[in-house]
Amino acid sequence: MAVGEFDLIRRHFTRPVRHTALGVGDDAALIDPTPGMQMVVATDMLVAGTHFFAEADPRSVGHKALAVNLSDLAAMGATPRQALLGIALPSADEAWVAAFAEGFAAVAQRFAVDWVGGDTTRGPLNVCVTVIGEVPRGEALLRSGAQVGDAVWVSGVPGLAALALAELQGRCQLPAALRADAHARLHSPEPRVALGLALRGVASACIDVSDGLLSDLGHILDASACGAVLDAARLPWPAPATDGVSDALIRQCLLSGGDDYELLFTAPQSRHADVAALAAATSTPLWCIGEIVAGSGIALLDEGQLSRLEPRGYDHFA
Amino acid sequence: MAVGEFDLIRRHFTRPVRHTALGVGDDAALIDPTPGMQMVVATDMLVAGTHFFAEADPRSVGHKALAVNLSDLAAMGATPRQALLGIALPSADEAWVAAFAEGFAAVAQRFAVDWVGGDTTRGPLNVCVTVIGEVPRGEALLRSGAQVGDAVWVSGVPGLAALALAELQGRCQLPAALRADAHARLHSPEPRVALGLALRGVASACIDVSDGLLSDLGHILDASACGAVLDAARLPWPAPATDGVSDALIRQCLLSGGDDYELLFTAPQSRHADVAALAAATSTPLWCIGEIVAGSGIALLDEGQLSRLEPRGYDHFA
Repeated sequence: MAVGEFDLIRRHFTRPVRHTALGVGDDAALIDPTPGMQMVVATDMLVAGTHFFAEADPRSVGHKALAVNLSDLAAMGATPRQALLGIALPSADEAWVAAFAEGFAAVAQRFAVDWVGGDTTRGPLNVCVTVIGEVPRGEALLRSGAQVGDAVWVSGVPGLAALALAELQGRCQLPAALRADAHARLHSPEPRVALGLALRGVASACIDVSDGLLSDLGHILDASACGAVLDAARLPWPAPATDGVSDALIRQCLLSGGDDYELLFTAPQSRHADVAALAAATSTPLWCIGEIVAGSGIALLDEGQLSRLEPRGYDHFA
Repeated sequence: MAVGEFDLIRRHFTRPVRHTALGVGDDAALIDPTPGMQMVVATDMLVAGTHFFAEADPRSVGHKALAVNLSDLAAMGATPRQALLGIALPSADEAWVAAFAEGFAAVAQRFAVDWVGGDTTRGPLNVCVTVIGEVPRGEALLRSGAQVGDAVWVSGVPGLAALALAELQGRCQLPAALRADAHARLHSPEPRVALGLALRGVASACIDVSDGLLSDLGHILDASACGAVLDAARLPWPAPATDGVSDALIRQCLLSGGDDYELLFTAPQSRHADVAALAAATSTPLWCIGEIVAGSGIALLDEGQLSRLEPRGYDHFA
């Protein structure tokens, strides 16, 4: 069915707003900032063939496009408020757009995000989302606050999305239970918004795992000018049976796979009980995987042996 | 030269910020809103082959990507403050990126815009910019404020960018002086930021001409629930000689050509002298081209004859 740009926007991309002064329909949206809060803004671009398969379920593309952006807000400890969507479509395929908009809107609804504007154009499939959140002034979780002696924590089980991708690429075959977990993580990641909010005042530094655990830990270490030692025995491991998948592949995905959108953070050892309490309060599995040390880089302690780990995160141009 | 994503960002997309709490380098940027102001946000996506030729000068692509977004803020009467850039690149061509970043940064510098974040990825060339501005609460220029009896104004000479595009498509040959004007408009449009700010408290409605004069006037009329009569004798006309270009093509470009990023606005007849004064103060040519009337749609008054005009703006999927 041939539909025009303005029709597409009106039918699928215009939703009522709940906490925004002016939403879609003018040259720009208008937002009333809450007094005492800082605005938190981030942009992530998803490209067909790079971040998702061109033939992927459009509902999951819409879900993921907003979810990965909300993950950036979670990593700052921010409350999500608004989103803008720029989208290039190869054709005005209304069924695709409707399903995409549904996936996007469902995540927006769940996290109380107003969809306030955007731009629809023709071109190779590309989705660029900007999110706006709020955080009390001075309370944002930064990458730069890690201190020597802090514990290193990670949520969930990073690497599941990478295992699903490895299976899609024919590099392994996952047992059924693990497959379900892993593919859900790859296609419909859950941003750790509640955890990010709970970590305000507790975590000393935070980042979301989008490039890979080692690579993203490296960003915290660079920004905080310190190093870290990880304890192999305390790294999370997929709970369902992993029969038929090599330990080497699992560890590689855990340490270097991106796309899980778990939170990686540091906190003073004195806050251990607080971290455990907020894990319970937000129903989030949290693992204490190591410690911040003086120096630089990441070392792994494995059966008494200390070895240096090289970050191998995803680099789009490497 | 092969360079990594983080190197590209660090070398070309990281600039000092002047009025932003935290810029590039964390999961998100942090902005301190000015008390009493509303935040104004807009997103525009530019795609190679749709909005610019893939072989276009990267400096002018960088210029245009930010300029068309600032035009949306100008149309709201907002002061530009921050910009975020999502960009997909087919390869890590550092010379291209450097020139693009130069063009983008030059516009940012001129309009005091902090470049606070973004995302760099691999994919068909696509540039998605989000801009953030500020406007005193309740003073934004909306599309919905036009009143019966208001004058209709436009800045500059819309249609020049469309004439340049017509020449590039082999549909006409422009005289040298006109060519220079027209191609500058197409490749390096100037957002009417100063004009937008001066129109606060004077204009009753405002929009930027990106889809075409008739189409964008139609958006004001739809939002304001009224009609308009344009006076053919008062429409702006290119100042340089137009030898060899048909009047019909010029009028078509004037009424339906997009991409000039002039401002189209309405103001009460009682504010005529104020509009003339702010035209002088901001060195902007302004033309009073018609009047808002009861009803709907657009009519043209030409040598005593009234005829109905159909908006024929640009629709990416029509």
